[in-house]
Amino acid sequence: MQFKARTHRLLEVGGDTREELIFDWGIMALIAANVVAVILSTVDALYLQYQALFQLFELVSVSIFTLEYLGRIWAVTVNEGYSGPVTGRIRYALKPMLIIDLLAILPFYVGFFFVDLRFLRALRLFRFFRLLKLARYSQSIRSFKRVLQDKREDLVVSISATLILLVLAASMMYFFERTAQPDVFSSIPAAFWWAVVTLTTVGYGDVYPVTFGGRLFAAIVAFLGIGLFALPASILSSGFVEQSSTADSPTYCPHCGESLREEH
Amino acid sequence: MQFKARTHRLLEVGGDTREELIFDWGIMALIAANVVAVILSTVDALYLQYQALFQLFELVSVSIFTLEYLGRIWAVTVNEGYSGPVTGRIRYALKPMLIIDLLAILPFYVGFFFVDLRFLRALRLFRFFRLLKLARYSQSIRSFKRVLQDKREDLVVSISATLILLVLAASMMYFFERTAQPDVFSSIPAAFWWAVVTLTTVGYGDVYPVTFGGRLFAAIVAFLGIGLFALPASILSSGFVEQSSTADSPTYCPHCGESLREEH
Amino acid sequence: MQFKARTHRLLEVGGDTREELIFDWGIMALIAANVVAVILSTVDALYLQYQALFQLFELVSVSIFTLEYLGRIWAVTVNEGYSGPVTGRIRYALKPMLIIDLLAILPFYVGFFFVDLRFLRALRLFRFFRLLKLARYSQSIRSFKRVLQDKREDLVVSISATLILLVLAASMMYFFERTAQPDVFSSIPAAFWWAVVTLTTVGYGDVYPVTFGGRLFAAIVAFLGIGLFALPASILSSGFVEQSSTADSPTYCPHCGESLREEH
Amino acid sequence: MQFKARTHRLLEVGGDTREELIFDWGIMALIAANVVAVILSTVDALYLQYQALFQLFELVSVSIFTLEYLGRIWAVTVNEGYSGPVTGRIRYALKPMLIIDLLAILPFYVGFFFVDLRFLRALRLFRFFRLLKLARYSQSIRSFKRVLQDKREDLVVSISATLILLVLAASMMYFFERTAQPDVFSSIPAAFWWAVVTLTTVGYGDVYPVTFGGRLFAAIVAFLGIGLFALPASILSSGFVEQSSTADSPTYCPHCGESLREEH
Repeated sequence: MQFKARTHRLLEVGGDTREELIFDWGIMALIAANVVAVILSTVDALYLQYQALFQLFELVSVSIFTLEYLGRIWAVTVNEGYSGPVTGRIRYALKPMLIIDLLAILPFYVGFFFVDLRFLRALRLFRFFRLLKLARYSQSIRSFKRVLQDKREDLVVSISATLILLVLAASMMYFFERTAQPDVFSSIPAAFWWAVVTLTTVGYGDVYPVTFGGRLFAAIVAFLGIGLFALPASILSSGFVEQSSTADSPTYCPHCGESLREEH
Repeated sequence: MQFKARTHRLLEVGGDTREELIFDWGIMALIAANVVAVILSTVDALYLQYQALFQLFELVSVSIFTLEYLGRIWAVTVNEGYSGPVTGRIRYALKPMLIIDLLAILPFYVGFFFVDLRFLRALRLFRFFRLLKLARYSQSIRSFKRVLQDKREDLVVSISATLILLVLAASMMYFFERTAQPDVFSSIPAAFWWAVVTLTTVGYGDVYPVTFGGRLFAAIVAFLGIGLFALPASILSSGFVEQSSTADSPTYCPHCGESLREEH
Repeated sequence: MQFKARTHRLLEVGGDTREELIFDWGIMALIAANVVAVILSTVDALYLQYQALFQLFELVSVSIFTLEYLGRIWAVTVNEGYSGPVTGRIRYALKPMLIIDLLAILPFYVGFFFVDLRFLRALRLFRFFRLLKLARYSQSIRSFKRVLQDKREDLVVSISATLILLVLAASMMYFFERTAQPDVFSSIPAAFWWAVVTLTTVGYGDVYPVTFGGRLFAAIVAFLGIGLFALPASILSSGFVEQSSTADSPTYCPHCGESLREEH
Repeated sequence: MQFKARTHRLLEVGGDTREELIFDWGIMALIAANVVAVILSTVDALYLQYQALFQLFELVSVSIFTLEYLGRIWAVTVNEGYSGPVTGRIRYALKPMLIIDLLAILPFYVGFFFVDLRFLRALRLFRFFRLLKLARYSQSIRSFKRVLQDKREDLVVSISATLILLVLAASMMYFFERTAQPDVFSSIPAAFWWAVVTLTTVGYGDVYPVTFGGRLFAAIVAFLGIGLFALPASILSSGFVEQSSTADSPTYCPHCGESLREEH
């Protein structure tokens, strides 16, 4: 039982003993190395030459991830919130982070049962969900979360406005350009691609208007794209400024203890 | 008369009874579904296969929108501001939102009288004005409106500066490039397209300078384009910060206790 | 003499009598119309068809601008600062605004003396300096000026950093790409075009790296380009916030007259 | 010894006597001129015509830079922190600025020993490190440094999020596009180039998705790119606003008169 509790403390992220820190950073390094390996394994020249090495590293890292996953499921019952041997473990396994962890190891085993290796290669891309694990290790994200939460409604309104703008821009441009470029602007869904590429100011150059009306309308859309950058930037700005102005200035004088905010 | 008042309350957006909420959200869902249907109907492959379905949904949704439109016009006389049976209804029908609602259903009937079906397809694009109806359902837009109103003058000045910059950029670039690229920079209006694509940093790549002078000038314009992003972002930022700081700054004088907000 | 003073008051921008306002707005409308005419006259199809009309409007507007220019020079001596009949007038004529006004009418007369009409067409582009005249009519620009002045040093530092970054980016990219693309990256000045197009995120697509090293370096430069947008936006933001926070909150209680800033 | 101290004061940047100022600005002008010369020398047409001039200027400027470098190393022993004739000088020579200064002159001498001139031309690009010397001469950078330091953690978090986003975007896009465009999206590292070009909204147009799924995913990535611009802009905004508001907020408690800044 002592061992289970220690396993639980070790495997759960966080903790301040030396071995807990080493374990947390070790797993994180292994995740990063694994991501790099998956990326490099898609380069044919590299994969063909070091196939055995890639497969060995795959085997080792997936084994460690599997042990870690099973260990966490096994030891979680020491946590009072998940004390039920079956129901507690199932509830724990259904937490988003645990599902991501499972998705990171599953493709390896699923690939084992089938024969088609190309299918396996497509599946192994899902292993990139391991990256999201990294998020579990960060603390500084909290301040961002608070700003995003404070400004949630403003952001939702601007995203909605953007989507409506996107639909209007795509439909209008289809109306202007479909006669001149029937292949490129063949339908409104096709015109959506143009609208996205223009509003975000990416401008690949694979689709662009050629008629006078289309260009005039595209100019208006492109300038609205500037507003699209200005809105989230200014919303988040005010969020960060509010946060720091609340946190920074002292509320009570540290010397006499009187409130510095009376007037507010 | 009781029925007319109830119809008015139901059809006008807003209200807190269960049936009013269901009606508002139902109409909104129908508008969204209709927009999606119009978008998909421009994809030839889909339209040819599901033509009957598209036309049926068209018939049903336009019927509901027509009934809603006529109901609103008929029932508005219970509102004291529009009590005249004829003049009140006409004044109501001329409100921007009502005109948009009419434009959303009119193409259907206009298409019925004519024979040319292609003309009909162009007209049905106007039905996208229905999207704007969505704006009527949102409340959070108010805070944006206030910031835009507070910063109206600053935004007008920056838009004016942008337009002057646009004219200067287009004319100068015409001067630099017309000899080297007489087809692309054939006139100043043609050079405007380049200026828009560059200042908004979209950069499709269909027009760009090739001469030394043109490239030097384009570099200056592209860097001014950064300022074009910075201006609205910073103006709106200060608008949002002011709004939130208005809630923070002292409301009452700490000396005499009188309100400091009257004067504003 | 009375006439001269009245002319001076009328021709100098500003003033609140009805005729002064009409004159100011009339000149501004004529400038705008003239700019539009010059733009349209570069469209060959239009120019060939309405040549006489363009030339007539040109004659009329340049005549009015010339009379206005000469009138201002003549009448300025009633202003104490420019009372010298010759030296005062010369000092006045050398003010930037007056030079711009002169440049707006000069091409017309210079074109009269020479024979080559194509040369004339190139010169008339300088007439676009008339646009800058518009700046004289605006009042709201003052607040922008103050922010730009407050943040002058910060902006100069960021512009300097950008220029150094530009030089480094161009030289490095020349080093990476000149072997693979000797035509496109033929020299460092040629690589500058790439650096500008990338740092400003315009991305025309006429020049881009193809080697591994070049792309890695381009990725770093492109991400620095984001910082290039963030810097002026945040500098101007703080400028606008400072300005409004100084102007907005009352310094003295309007009721009891006591300072609300004591503590500051 | 008097001479050594005077040399030290002269060669170290900073100082207020007339000759120190002239020396500092003279060296800076020479650095700028040298950078321009290196840039122009890569233009073949110019280099072939003025080869002797370029080489002479090279010789002169490198000689001066070498004398300055050796002088600084020699005279630094008058500084108490580097008083050891050998160890002090070595510690001084290992400071980043001194290493950059050395890298700026070394290519010249290294090029002298080898014969292959093309190799020399590649090496001379390192001379652009001289540009970084310019940073030593600026004072206004301090305020930027403070904002960057205050917001260090926020910036690190957003850069990390960007990198994870980059990996996810590249891997996903490889999954979507590799069948349709096996040449362009041949591997995940190749897809990284697309991810960078899209997230930074550069959009050269050399790589872009063509499948439906790829375009849908690219649209999401492009809109996340807007957030990528908004985050640093808003973080730096709040940093600059805080800095200026620190100067504004009360320094002393209005009740007991004690300083409120000690604790910070």
